[in-house]
Amino acid sequence: MNQGYKAITGSVSRLISELGKLPGIGPRSAQRLAYYLLRANEEDVYNLANAITAIKTGTRLCSICYNIADEEKCPVCTSKTRENSIICVVEQPQDILALEHVGIFKGVYHVLHGAISPSEGVGTDNIRIKELVDRVEQGNISELIIATNPTTEGETTALYLYRLISPMGIHVTRLARGLPFGTEIEYADDVTLSRALEGRQDF
Amino acid sequence: MNQGYKAITGSVSRLISELGKLPGIGPRSAQRLAYYLLRANEEDVYNLANAITAIKTGTRLCSICYNIADEEKCPVCTSKTRENSIICVVEQPQDILALEHVGIFKGVYHVLHGAISPSEGVGTDNIRIKELVDRVEQGNISELIIATNPTTEGETTALYLYRLISPMGIHVTRLARGLPFGTEIEYADDVTLSRALEGRQDF
Repeated sequence: MNQGYKAITGSVSRLISELGKLPGIGPRSAQRLAYYLLRANEEDVYNLANAITAIKTGTRLCSICYNIADEEKCPVCTSKTRENSIICVVEQPQDILALEHVGIFKGVYHVLHGAISPSEGVGTDNIRIKELVDRVEQGNISELIIATNPTTEGETTALYLYRLISPMGIHVTRLARGLPFGTEIEYADDVTLSRALEGRQDF
Repeated sequence: MNQGYKAITGSVSRLISELGKLPGIGPRSAQRLAYYLLRANEEDVYNLANAITAIKTGTRLCSICYNIADEEKCPVCTSKTRENSIICVVEQPQDILALEHVGIFKGVYHVLHGAISPSEGVGTDNIRIKELVDRVEQGNISELIIATNPTTEGETTALYLYRLISPMGIHVTRLARGLPFGTEIEYADDVTLSRALEGRQDF
């Protein structure tokens, strides 16, 4: 709270304060947004407020894949054009948005809602691994693509899932690790470079 | 709307779309904010939605200075420690926040809600100039500090106000124009540099 706030009226300083709690919104952005909303037309402002409220009142987790859903099932699980035998396992619902943006995956998802992290007290029971095993046990799964983050936690989770599920006779794969597009080898970090070497691919 | 959106549920894509309409919030930021709100605790989310709604339902213009107010008068006009005889004239309510942040001005304000701009059809009757003249005519004003923006519109407005109000026997001043702090003369633009020369000050 900077000292200018005592001179502005309560509802404006409250809005600046609430907007400033959002990630990536600094005090200056919060001020600019607040004054923008003050001038914006009423309908736009109410639409925004209602969309924010609806995210809490109107959503639940998909009963199949645990993605965010408005109904019992999410749009992917409801779709008749998706290949239900291929499951892509992600850590968070927003990972689905990134993968769907690419547009080449035509299977379905499973959202773990986290990754195994002993240091943060997240064990195998705290994320939706049991639910994934249940889906696999119900049969009809040909491939499980593990798309956890390339971090310590994500890779621990990937390895755990591989050891748990591949003995069930399921083909378990993971996203390729290597050099990201548009970077220069000169500046690649050691881990990325060693993985790119180890995972070298034929043309 | 990118193609990933059709795979995510309605309330999430609506929120991303509404957030994406805000100035300075790109598609990526809108996504990140939406998923942040999904995980955020309910009270924080409702507080944000309510603060946004309140900016429309709970505010009006101060009956004295036309700053944003929750009550009939804004916090500055209500304050007993401000010097009512010195009025600082600004274009927009958010300019008050910037000036209050500096903390050295102890007078009161007058918000024009715009600047004269013939090209955009904003004339002297479209901004709150008459209301300013009324305040000056009611007496007890010793100085009027014009703090319009250093733009063509702001300076046109400043000059108009000077010619209108100084014949009424009021001391009319304006914010100094010159080199901004932290810049280098080498890179200063011609207009800024010529004003810094013309307005050169004694030590």
